[in-house]
This record gives sequence, C-alpha cells and structure tokens, in this order.
Amino acid sequence: MTTPTDTFHGWVSDSPTTPLTLTTFTPKPFAETDIEIRITHCGICGTDLHTLRSGWGPTEYPCVVGHEIIGIVTRLGISATPTEPLQLGDRVGIGAQIHSCFEPSCESCTHAEENYCPQIVSTYNARYYSHETKRRSGEKTYGGFARTWRGPVDFVFKIPAGLPSAQAAPLLCAGVTVFTPLRKYGAGAGKTVGIIGIGGLGHLGIMFARALGCESVVGISRTGRKREDVKKLGADGFIATDEDQGWQRTWSRKLDLVVCTVDGEDMPLEGYLKLLKVDGTFVQVGAPEKPLPRLMAWALIQKAVKVTGSNIGSREDIREMLKVAAEKQVLPWVEKRPMAEVNGALKDMEAGRARFRYVLENGENESRL
Amino acid sequence: MTTPTDTFHGWVSDSPTTPLTLTTFTPKPFAETDIEIRITHCGICGTDLHTLRSGWGPTEYPCVVGHEIIGIVTRLGISATPTEPLQLGDRVGIGAQIHSCFEPSCESCTHAEENYCPQIVSTYNARYYSHETKRRSGEKTYGGFARTWRGPVDFVFKIPAGLPSAQAAPLLCAGVTVFTPLRKYGAGAGKTVGIIGIGGLGHLGIMFARALGCESVVGISRTGRKREDVKKLGADGFIATDEDQGWQRTWSRKLDLVVCTVDGEDMPLEGYLKLLKVDGTFVQVGAPEKPLPRLMAWALIQKAVKVTGSNIGSREDIREMLKVAAEKQVLPWVEKRPMAEVNGALKDMEAGRARFRYVLENGENESRL
Repeated sequence: MTTPTDTFHGWVSDSPTTPLTLTTFTPKPFAETDIEIRITHCGICGTDLHTLRSGWGPTEYPCVVGHEIIGIVTRLGISATPTEPLQLGDRVGIGAQIHSCFEPSCESCTHAEENYCPQIVSTYNARYYSHETKRRSGEKTYGGFARTWRGPVDFVFKIPAGLPSAQAAPLLCAGVTVFTPLRKYGAGAGKTVGIIGIGGLGHLGIMFARALGCESVVGISRTGRKREDVKKLGADGFIATDEDQGWQRTWSRKLDLVVCTVDGEDMPLEGYLKLLKVDGTFVQVGAPEKPLPRLMAWALIQKAVKVTGSNIGSREDIREMLKVAAEKQVLPWVEKRPMAEVNGALKDMEAGRARFRYVLENGENESRL
Repeated sequence: MTTPTDTFHGWVSDSPTTPLTLTTFTPKPFAETDIEIRITHCGICGTDLHTLRSGWGPTEYPCVVGHEIIGIVTRLGISATPTEPLQLGDRVGIGAQIHSCFEPSCESCTHAEENYCPQIVSTYNARYYSHETKRRSGEKTYGGFARTWRGPVDFVFKIPAGLPSAQAAPLLCAGVTVFTPLRKYGAGAGKTVGIIGIGGLGHLGIMFARALGCESVVGISRTGRKREDVKKLGADGFIATDEDQGWQRTWSRKLDLVVCTVDGEDMPLEGYLKLLKVDGTFVQVGAPEKPLPRLMAWALIQKAVKVTGSNIGSREDIREMLKVAAEKQVLPWVEKRPMAEVNGALKDMEAGRARFRYVLENGENESRL
C-alpha cells in the first residue's frame, strides 16, 4: 500500500566525507503492524559518527542515522500490537534496535534477549529480517535525523511523564547501554563500581550506578578536566589515568565492576583490570574501530576477572531503565541543538565538546514542513 | 632447629640454559607446623618449562621445579594441623600452591579462595610469606624433582585409594586447573563444553567434562593428529582449526563454555569466541609468555561472551576434584619416566611428545640414596 507519506524528509548522508543534506528518502511501505511517529528529538550517539564515516565497515548510503529518538505517535497500524498500550498522540522513544527475527528457533528471541539475536535489526544502516529468506534481506532502515520515523511497533517504548523529551532521548541508547550491564552484574548495595570514560555513556553510568544504590562509584578518565563534573554527577572517587601517579597500585583490587564506555584504541586495559577484585567484571560497551589492546593471559588468570561486553539492552531492560530513570530522576546532561545544525553538532561531537550529549530538536516550523 | 635432613637431594637448575643436575639443596628449617614427605612421583607441567627457562620473568636459581608431587608422609610436626587427618605412612599429594597469607584481612583467604591470595606461595621459585614483613620475604620454596619435600601441612592432600600414584600426580596441578573452571562455570547436564589444546591439561579437561555429566564435549586442536585420542578420551566432537574449512561457522553459537589450555601465542581467539552461545564463557588457563591476540570489542559485545581466566584451584576444589577423579576414575594418560631421566623427559615435553603427561618416578634405590 503506497500512501502520500511514503516520502520522508531527513538529514541524509551520501558518502563518508560529505555533510548531511536535508532531502527526501523513501521509508519502508507502511504495514498494518507498523507505527509512525513525528520525531521531536534525537540524540547524537558515537555510533552515528562511526557509521557516517564507514568506520565499522562499509555503510550502505544513502543513510539516515540517529537512534535516540523521541516523538509523538501519529499513525498506528490496525494490527500493531505494542508491548504496552499505545495510542495516537502518545510520547514514545526508539533506541538502537527496531526488530529481531522472533523465530521460535532463536534462543535469544525466545529468552527475551532480543538484543543478542543473530539477526538483530538496527535502527539505521540495516535491512529488515525476512521470514522467507531467513536473512536480513528486506527494506532498508532509516533513523532519527529526520521528521518522521516509521517501523514495527515492537521496539517502541512509552516515555514516562517524569522525563523531559530532550533528556529522555539519550536514555534510549546511551542510557540502556550502561544500565543493562550495571544491573546484570549486580551494581547495588555494597558494591564499588568504576565507570571509564566520562561522556554520553559514562556520565549516565555514574548516575545509574548511584541510582541503583552502589556503595561507591568511581569515575575514570584520562585527565583531570572532568573531575568536578564527575563529582557533580554523584561519584565519590575519581582517577585520572594520565596524571595520577601509581593509580593502578592505589586502586588495586578495589572495584567489583567496571563499565568501559571508551571507544578509543589505546586504553590501558591491563591497568583497568588491576582495579578489579577477584572475580570482578570488566564490561566493554564502547566499540572502537580497531582491536582492543593485547592482554597478558596472567591478567585474567591471577584474579579470575571477567572481560566481557554488553550490547544495548533487551526490551525489558529498556522498560526497567526508563522506570528507574523517572523514579530516581536520572536526567542526562544535554545540550539542545536545532536539527538544522546537525552538521555542526556532529563536528562538535567528534571533537569531544559534548557535555555530555547533543540532542537535536525539530522546531515547530521545521517539523511541520 | 637444624636436623640431619636439612640437606635434601634433588634435580637442581642453575641457569636457564644448563641441564638439571642431581645435587643437594637446603630446604627451609623444619617447623613444628611442617610436614615432610618422601617423594615417589612428580609430574612434569608446562610451568616447569616456563620457569626453568625464565620464560615468565627471571627465575631465582638454584631452583628445583615440579609441583605435581606424590609421596609418603615421613615426618609430621607436633603442631601441624592438617585440614584432614594425616599420619606417618599416608600417601599424599602437593600441587602448585603450598601456602598463602591467611591474614584475617585477606578477602581471598577468608573466602576459601586461597588460590587468589595476592601473597600466594608457589611450590617452587618463590619465598614464604612473612607475617612480620607482610611480604613473601621468607625462605625459598623447592619443588618435587627431588627425593624429599618439606613444607607447611596446609596444602597437603590425602590421595584416595582408588587413584594410582603415577596417575594421581598430574591431578594435583593439571587436573585441578581444568576441573575448577568446569565446575565453577556450570559444566554438567545439558551443557556443551569445548576444550582447546589436547595435552596434559586438555586431555583431563575432556575427561572431567565427561565425568561431570556434560551433554556434549568437543576437543579443539590445530590439526587432526589427536582426533582418535580425543574420541577415546570421551569427546563427541572434534575441531581441527587448521584443517576444518569453515569451522567457525559450522560451530557458531554451539558451546556454553570453553576452557583453553593452550599456551602458545598465535591462537585464533576471535574464532574461538564465535563458538560460544550468548553469555558463554571462555576460560584461559594456559599462560603464554607473550600477550594474547588482540580482540575486536565487538567480539565481546555482540554476544556478551565472557573472557576470563582461572588459577589452579582452592583447597576445597582440590579435595572435590580428587573425590570426582576417584569415583569416576578420571585417570590421566601418563608415561612414567625414571627421575634420573628428567633432562630427557623435559626435552620430550618441550617437543610436544607427551601423551599426555610425563610422570617422574623415584626408583626404590634412588629414593633411598
């Protein structure tokens, strides 16, 4: 079924080197299981930068990035069965995943771990899964640097009243990415948690660790520049790895859990592991374009520390995260930018100027275009 | 208190490049908390080779290696309080650890994880912990390539009747090193477990995974040379990573747990991780002298796999392992060599000729010298 809305307006990328341009693109045809939203806000995530420059592999251009989307429901297919009651006019959010295979044979989908489905469908630069081909051979997916989003209703979440839209946006990807491993690996009463990298993800890591009731939260950065911010975010400890002499010894065996949000290549990984207690866990959530530093096996063996990773979160994780964020008022530090300034905002993000998240806003006029 | 036994006979190493020579060395003075045993058997472990060549760092020569020791109790200090009843004439074993700090402030010692005590005292090439200095500043430790062993009674284990001495020896280090992570990470009914490297540790890994009731056990080697052995050991699957085309795809997401006993440098680590299911665990127990291969963060993130390590086992692990081995008749494949042939046996071990463990035997005449 083709309708007049089959052309959307958005900020489209055509190559790794050219700026985004406001133009039209063709979304998937509307299915009666789909939802459509008028986008009001979209956060800028590190993944957007990696994808725009084809950093993790070739991007399929034209591409519309953005997967921290907040908007208003404007259309709901008659067969759409949301996981929570939704109606026209509701305020909803969409994160980095919009579908998975949902095959009865999929261990991840049947265990509510859709975020580990081998056929995970990303919000952009991906193709929908096809039950016929058993592969992601369907329509292209387009993200939130646009005026409208259309897609399956399955991964669309109602935003609790207590969360302003601009601050809710980064929760959908950055928020759940740090919340999920914190909860999974027991961040809470009696636990000491370190958060490496104080940026979009890291600052939320500190706030969520605090919200979950950890005994102690330690921010870990290269330099002391963000020391005061880290304190304001609620941490009681701070390590500047490039500046604090002997930090590996001072903090040795002090942390139960470390979440590493850094996606640079030259992190002092063995040093970080020294901070963990026996059986402690190091969770990588940032995904550098180059491999992680090499590690002596002994760094793993001598304390049975676990090095693992975590990919966004399941739908249940997202709902729980939104609930905790609303209840404990975990509000990202954001800087709003008009969506028309997207290219400038991307440059500032790339240069590390975000404190700590840029959120693009569709102005009233702009969004009615 | 000095006694006539204060000079022991053993196969002493004086440098990384010279062969061992049968000569005398001076053990720690006998304390009334010590035990002394007449060594009948000692297995040759990879750690012996690393230590003899100063591979993991400078060895403190003269050195007597060997930490898979079986012998007969010949002396028991009047204040010695073994963790299980022991008397003169009993057959006992000693593994890779002979003491730890046992300080009330030590989280590892007070949680029965003495094998992760920061002041762990190795059976050889180490020094005893001193409660005065709070460091390992005491007497030197000497291992089992000798006729007599003397040391604290705390890490001496009674050998169950069902285990022949030559086969009990490798259990004390190789056995517990694979048994501990298998048990800790849930190897048992319904689980599929992979064992990488079919040598002294790996062959026991297959047998213990079987003894613990795993649904399926897969041996993983470079080439197909050990395929038949792996089947005889009880595995139902086999992967030759240098020969089986597309093994990473064929076995993708099939294993719950992998124990890697390899201590070479160029293992296909990312390929191994592909074999794991979501949330699966990869446990490194071999300790190469060079760092592990680099890993893309995505290899950890996309399935939340854990990469960890495991160091020998606690005393409780050792006792449990000996019990399982006796009950299920987990008997290492050993080749007995007279202790006088130690230099030849070390060369054969280095060349990878062991199928799968050399155990040195003190002959009746030799041990009476």
